[in-house]
Amino acid sequence: MGKTLMKGNEAIARAAILSGIDAYFGYPITPQNEIPEYLSKLMFEAGKVFVQAESEVAAINMVYGAAAAGFRTMTSSSSPGIALKQEGITYLCGAELPAVVVSVMRGGPGLGSITPSQGDYNQATRGGGNGDYHVIVFAPETIQETIDIMKEAFDIADYYRNPVMILVDGMIGQMMETVDLTKPVKKRFLPEKDWAANGTSRHSKRNVVNSLYIESDILEAHNLALKKKYDKVVINDTRYELINMEDPDYVIVAFGTMSRICRSAIEMLAEKKIRVGIIRPISLWPFPNVAFENLDAPHLKGILDVEMNLGQMLTDVLVANNGKYPVGFFGRAGGVVPEPEEVVDAILHFKNRVVK
Amino acid sequence: MGKTLMKGNEAIARAAILSGIDAYFGYPITPQNEIPEYLSKLMFEAGKVFVQAESEVAAINMVYGAAAAGFRTMTSSSSPGIALKQEGITYLCGAELPAVVVSVMRGGPGLGSITPSQGDYNQATRGGGNGDYHVIVFAPETIQETIDIMKEAFDIADYYRNPVMILVDGMIGQMMETVDLTKPVKKRFLPEKDWAANGTSRHSKRNVVNSLYIESDILEAHNLALKKKYDKVVINDTRYELINMEDPDYVIVAFGTMSRICRSAIEMLAEKKIRVGIIRPISLWPFPNVAFENLDAPHLKGILDVEMNLGQMLTDVLVANNGKYPVGFFGRAGGVVPEPEEVVDAILHFKNRVVK
Amino acid sequence: MGKTLMKGNEAIARAAILSGIDAYFGYPITPQNEIPEYLSKLMFEAGKVFVQAESEVAAINMVYGAAAAGFRTMTSSSSPGIALKQEGITYLCGAELPAVVVSVMRGGPGLGSITPSQGDYNQATRGGGNGDYHVIVFAPETIQETIDIMKEAFDIADYYRNPVMILVDGMIGQMMETVDLTKPVKKRFLPEKDWAANGTSRHSKRNVVNSLYIESDILEAHNLALKKKYDKVVINDTRYELINMEDPDYVIVAFGTMSRICRSAIEMLAEKKIRVGIIRPISLWPFPNVAFENLDAPHLKGILDVEMNLGQMLTDVLVANNGKYPVGFFGRAGGVVPEPEEVVDAILHFKNRVVK
Amino acid sequence: MGKTLMKGNEAIARAAILSGIDAYFGYPITPQNEIPEYLSKLMFEAGKVFVQAESEVAAINMVYGAAAAGFRTMTSSSSPGIALKQEGITYLCGAELPAVVVSVMRGGPGLGSITPSQGDYNQATRGGGNGDYHVIVFAPETIQETIDIMKEAFDIADYYRNPVMILVDGMIGQMMETVDLTKPVKKRFLPEKDWAANGTSRHSKRNVVNSLYIESDILEAHNLALKKKYDKVVINDTRYELINMEDPDYVIVAFGTMSRICRSAIEMLAEKKIRVGIIRPISLWPFPNVAFENLDAPHLKGILDVEMNLGQMLTDVLVANNGKYPVGFFGRAGGVVPEPEEVVDAILHFKNRVVK
Repeated sequence: MGKTLMKGNEAIARAAILSGIDAYFGYPITPQNEIPEYLSKLMFEAGKVFVQAESEVAAINMVYGAAAAGFRTMTSSSSPGIALKQEGITYLCGAELPAVVVSVMRGGPGLGSITPSQGDYNQATRGGGNGDYHVIVFAPETIQETIDIMKEAFDIADYYRNPVMILVDGMIGQMMETVDLTKPVKKRFLPEKDWAANGTSRHSKRNVVNSLYIESDILEAHNLALKKKYDKVVINDTRYELINMEDPDYVIVAFGTMSRICRSAIEMLAEKKIRVGIIRPISLWPFPNVAFENLDAPHLKGILDVEMNLGQMLTDVLVANNGKYPVGFFGRAGGVVPEPEEVVDAILHFKNRVVK
Repeated sequence: MGKTLMKGNEAIARAAILSGIDAYFGYPITPQNEIPEYLSKLMFEAGKVFVQAESEVAAINMVYGAAAAGFRTMTSSSSPGIALKQEGITYLCGAELPAVVVSVMRGGPGLGSITPSQGDYNQATRGGGNGDYHVIVFAPETIQETIDIMKEAFDIADYYRNPVMILVDGMIGQMMETVDLTKPVKKRFLPEKDWAANGTSRHSKRNVVNSLYIESDILEAHNLALKKKYDKVVINDTRYELINMEDPDYVIVAFGTMSRICRSAIEMLAEKKIRVGIIRPISLWPFPNVAFENLDAPHLKGILDVEMNLGQMLTDVLVANNGKYPVGFFGRAGGVVPEPEEVVDAILHFKNRVVK
Repeated sequence: MGKTLMKGNEAIARAAILSGIDAYFGYPITPQNEIPEYLSKLMFEAGKVFVQAESEVAAINMVYGAAAAGFRTMTSSSSPGIALKQEGITYLCGAELPAVVVSVMRGGPGLGSITPSQGDYNQATRGGGNGDYHVIVFAPETIQETIDIMKEAFDIADYYRNPVMILVDGMIGQMMETVDLTKPVKKRFLPEKDWAANGTSRHSKRNVVNSLYIESDILEAHNLALKKKYDKVVINDTRYELINMEDPDYVIVAFGTMSRICRSAIEMLAEKKIRVGIIRPISLWPFPNVAFENLDAPHLKGILDVEMNLGQMLTDVLVANNGKYPVGFFGRAGGVVPEPEEVVDAILHFKNRVVK
Repeated sequence: MGKTLMKGNEAIARAAILSGIDAYFGYPITPQNEIPEYLSKLMFEAGKVFVQAESEVAAINMVYGAAAAGFRTMTSSSSPGIALKQEGITYLCGAELPAVVVSVMRGGPGLGSITPSQGDYNQATRGGGNGDYHVIVFAPETIQETIDIMKEAFDIADYYRNPVMILVDGMIGQMMETVDLTKPVKKRFLPEKDWAANGTSRHSKRNVVNSLYIESDILEAHNLALKKKYDKVVINDTRYELINMEDPDYVIVAFGTMSRICRSAIEMLAEKKIRVGIIRPISLWPFPNVAFENLDAPHLKGILDVEMNLGQMLTDVLVANNGKYPVGFFGRAGGVVPEPEEVVDAILHFKNRVVK
C-alpha cells in the first residue's frame, strides 16, 4: 500500500481495524471524536461491532463484557472521559482482561480546555482505580509510531491479559503525516483464549471471569501473581528511545509531542555547543528506569524534565535518578504547547529550574 | 460529653455533624455502609439533607452542585466506588469547590475483597481525574484522630476551596475505641463564600462556578493559580508524626492502621536493642518530604516502607529520600493485615528488603 | 394574605409549600422549569429537601424512597419527562405510596414542541406503567383551581396511598392570574403513616414497602384490594363542573385551558340562540361518567369533545355516552391553541364532526 | 425445514433472524430472558449486532439510533421494562422510525410477579409516551402465529415507518409447540430507506432524523400527517379472527392466551346448547371496531370481555359496541390464568357480569 498522508485519529482507527479488532465501544468527547467517527464506518464495513454507548461508564463496561467473551475490543476517550472509566479499568486489570484504551489528552483539571496537553500522566500511570494494578501505557511521538504501537497493543494486551493504554495528545490526533500502515510490527505467540466466558461449546468447563476474591489470602495470592506478571512486563516491554546521548552536558526527559519539540531545541543548543541528549520514554508504565541506571555521562550537569503539564512525570524521573544528578523541570500547562526556544532557555538557565 | 466508646464509621458520621455539614450524598458499598446509615438518621434529626443517590457518579455530582451553592457537603465510598468519583473529584478541583470525601479502603483491584487494605494510596494521591490537580489527603491512625481530622477537614476544604479526602481502611471503620468527640481542633478564619452560585439576593453579580476554560492561556493562568494554592497547602498543612526518632538504626515509614502495628514492632525491636523510629505521614498529599530532608540520624542504616499493599507509597518515599539512605519495602496485599512479628522480621533482614 | 397576582408555575410551587411538602425531586424540562426553580428557593427557606436529580428516572425513584419513608413528596416534569417516570409511577401504585406528580404538557410526540398542548391525556390516564393501576388525575382550569387542587392533592394522595397527578398545559404554567393562596380546601382525617419504612423507633415491627408479590394468588388479592380502593376513589373523588347545562342543544366536553376557550365559545353561540352546555371533567381519572349518565337534555343534538390534541379523551366520552347521543370531535394538535371562533364553527357544523 | 418443536421465546428469536434483523438491544428481565439469550448466539453466528445495554432506557435509545441509520432493529422486555421504554417509543413514533418491540407481560403493577398476565393492555395500546401517537400492537395466540407475525412485523414497521409491538404473555414465551418457521407470510413492497441518517455516500443530501418541531403549526402538520398514516393502518392492518360467529347467543372478546382458554370454554358451552362466538382481536391497536360494527347476530344476548387483567380492554369493547348490546366482563388478575370452567360460569351468569 505504501505511504499515505493521514490524520492521527484516522490512523488510530485504521490501525485498530488492521489489528483485527472485533468491537469498539465509546462515547463522544473532543478532541478524539474522529476515532469513533472513522470506526463507525470502518467497523461497519468490516462486519464488526461499533456501539456508541449511553455514557463513558457504559462503554468501558461493554469493553469488559466483550473482552470477557474473548473478543478484541477497544474504547477511546479524552481526559474527563477517561476519569469516568477508572472503575472499569481496574475491573479489567483485576479480572485480567485484555483491551486497548486510547486516551487523547486535553487541558485540565475538570472540563479544562480542548487544546493538547500532557496533563493526564498521573491518570494514565497511577489510574484512580483501586488496588495494586498497572495499565501498560505507551506514549507515541509520531503518527507512524502511533500506528505501529496500536498494531502491537492488541497483541500485548492479549499476551499479558491486561489493558494497554495509548496516550496521545490532541496534537497527534489532529495533525497529518505521511505514514505506512503496512509496516510490519513484532508478532507474539498468542495461545487460544481458553479462559474466555464464551459458552461451553468450546470448553468442557464453564468459564467465569471476575475480579472478586472474598478470601484475603486468595486475593493476596492473586495480587502476587499479578505482580509477577507486571515484573515480566517491566523486563520485556519497557520501551524508550535514546537521542543524542553521547557524552551529553544535559539530558532532557520528554515524551510524546513534547519530545518532538525538544528534538528541535537540542539542535538549536548544538549550535551553541551545548550537547543535550534526550531520554524519550515510550512506555510510561513501565517507566524506563533502566535508561537512567545505565547513564554513563561524565560531563552531565543535570537532567531536565520537560512536559506539557506542571511536572507529573517528575516523580518517576526523581525515583529513576535517585539523587545521582541534579534534576530540573520545565513545563507549560493548560493546553499551551511550549516553543523550542523556551526549552533552549530552560537548559541555558538550568540552575533556576532545579527541583532536587 | 467526655469519653464514649464508638465505632469508627459512627465516629466519622458524628464528626461530620459536629462540623456543620449541610448535605450528604452517597451510594452504598461495604465496608463504609455504617457512615451513610448513621448519617441518614443524624442528618434527618438535624434537619439537613441526606440523599442516597442513583449511583456513585450521581452522588459526587450532587456534592459538586451543593458545594457550588456554598453548602458544606460530603460523600463517602470505598475503593471501586471512589474510582467512579474521579471525574467528579477533578471537577471539584478545577472549579475550586470545597468538599469532604471519605474513602474506606478494601482489597483490590476491581471488586477485590471487603477486608481492610491500603491499596488505594495511588488512587487517593494521584487520582485518576485529569489535569494538574491535588486532593488534600489525610490518613488518620486512630478513631480519635479520625474525629479530629474530620472536624478540621471541612474547614480546610473551605479554606483552600479544594476537596479533602479522609483515607482510612475498613479496620478503622469497624473497630471501637474510646473517644472524645468534643476535643477542640484548630479553627481558621473562613470568609463568606461570596463566590457561591446561590442566587443574586446576597451578591449583586451572578456567580458562575465552572471548570471550563476554553482559552489555553487563561487555563494556564488558572493552573498556575491552583499550583500556588497547592504550594501553600504544602507549606501550611503537611502533617506527620515522628515516633522514637532519636538516633535510630532504622526508620519505618507507615501510615494509618499500619503505623499502629509498627508501633508494636518497634517495641519488640527495642527489646532486641535495635532502635527504630517511625515517620508517620498524616497527610499523604502533601507528602511529608520535609521529615526526610530534616533527618539527622548518624547511625541510620536504612528506611523501610511498610504498607498494606505492594508498595504504592514507595515512589514518594524514594523521592523524599532522593538516594540518601537505602530504602526497603515490606507489605502484604489483598486485605491481609501484617502481624508486628512480620515487621520485626523485615527490619532484622532489611538487606533482603532493599529496593534502591 | 388576600389576593396576589401570580404565575401558574409559581402558584404550584407555593401551594406545594403550603401543603407541607417535605421533599421535591426533579429534573429540568421546559415548560415547567419555574416549578423547580421556585421550589429550590422556597424549599431551602423552609428547611426542606430539594434535589435536582441525575435524570427523570432518578427523580421518580427518589420520590418512591422518600414516600416509602413517610414523607410528603412530589416531582414535576413535562411530556417526555413524564414518559420516563412511568416505571416509577407504577411502582408507587403497586407499593401504595402517596406522591404528587405535576405534569405540564407540551406538544408531542417525542421531543415535539414546547408550546401548550393536551396531548398527554392518554399518558396521564392510562399511564404506560404495567399492570392494573390508576393514577388519580386532576386537570384544573385556572391558577386558583390549580392552587386549590394542589393543596388538596397531598391529602388525597395520603388518604388513598396512591399517586395523584396534576395535569396542566404550558399556558396555565406561564400565565398570570390574581389568586388567593389562603382559600380553604377540604380537609380529611389522615391517620399516622404506620406503614412507613422509617425505622423501628416508632413501630415495634420492621416495615417493608414493596410492589413484588411472587405468588399469583397473593398478587391477585393485592390487585383486588387496589381495585376496591379505586372504586372508592370513583365514588368519592370524581370531580366535574356543569356549565350552562339547562336544556342544551349541544354539550361540549372540555378540560383545562380548553374549557376556558369553550366558555367564550358558548357565549358567542348564545348570541346565535344556540344553547350549549359544558361538561368539564376536573378529574380525568376517574372520568365523570356520572355526568353523562345523569344527562337530562330533551333537545340535545349531540356531544362535542373539544381538545388540544387529536381526540384522546374521545374514548372516555364514548364509553360514558354509550351510544345515547351522537358524539363529535374537534381538536387542534401540535401545540396550537384553538380560537373560540373555531369551536363555534365546530358546533355550527356539528354534523361534519360526528365520530359515532 | 418442516415442523419443529419449539419454545415461544426461541421462536421469537428465530423469527427475528429470519426477518433479516440487523441489531438487537436489550436488558434482562424475566420472563423474556430466553429471547436475548437465544439472540446473543444467533445474532453472533449471523454476523449481526447484539448488545446487552446498560439499562432499558439505553436499549431503546440504541434501537432509535440503529433504526435512524436504516437498520432493522428490535428490543424486547417485560412489563416494568417496557414502562422504562415509553419515552424511547414515543421518540420512535415522533421521528417515524421502524422498530419491533416484543413485550412479554408479567403480573403488575410495579414489580408484580413473574407469572403470565395481560395486565399491560393499556401500556401497549395507550403507551405512556407523550403526544398523539400510536404503536401498532399485535397479540398472537399461538407460537406459530407469533412466528408469522414476527416475520411480518419488521416489514410492517418499515412500511409505515412506525414501531410495531408484539404483545405476548409469559405463557406463550415459555410453552412449546410444533411450528413451521418457513410458513410464508405476506410480503410488501418496501422502498429504499432514503430518509436514513447513514452518511452522504448514498444520498446527495444530509439526512436528519428528529422528533423536534419547534413551530406549532409545523408540528400540527406533522401530527396530521401521522394521523393520516394511522388511519391507513386502521384500514389496511386491523386484524382479528371470528370464531364460531354464526348466530351466537353470546360473543366473547378475548386475545392472546386468553382466547385459547375461551375456545375450550365455548366447546363446553356448546354441549350445554349455548352458542358462543369469539371475536379475537389480533391487532389491539388498531382495535377491530369493524368486527363489532358488522355484527349480525339476531339472538345475541350480550358481549363478554374476558381478560387476564381487571378489564383494560373493556374501554375499547364499549366504544366498539357503542351501546348496541349489553357488555359484561370477566377477568382474573395478578398472573392467575383462568380455567375454561370459570369462563363457562361467567357466560352462564352473564347478568352478574354486565358492566354497561
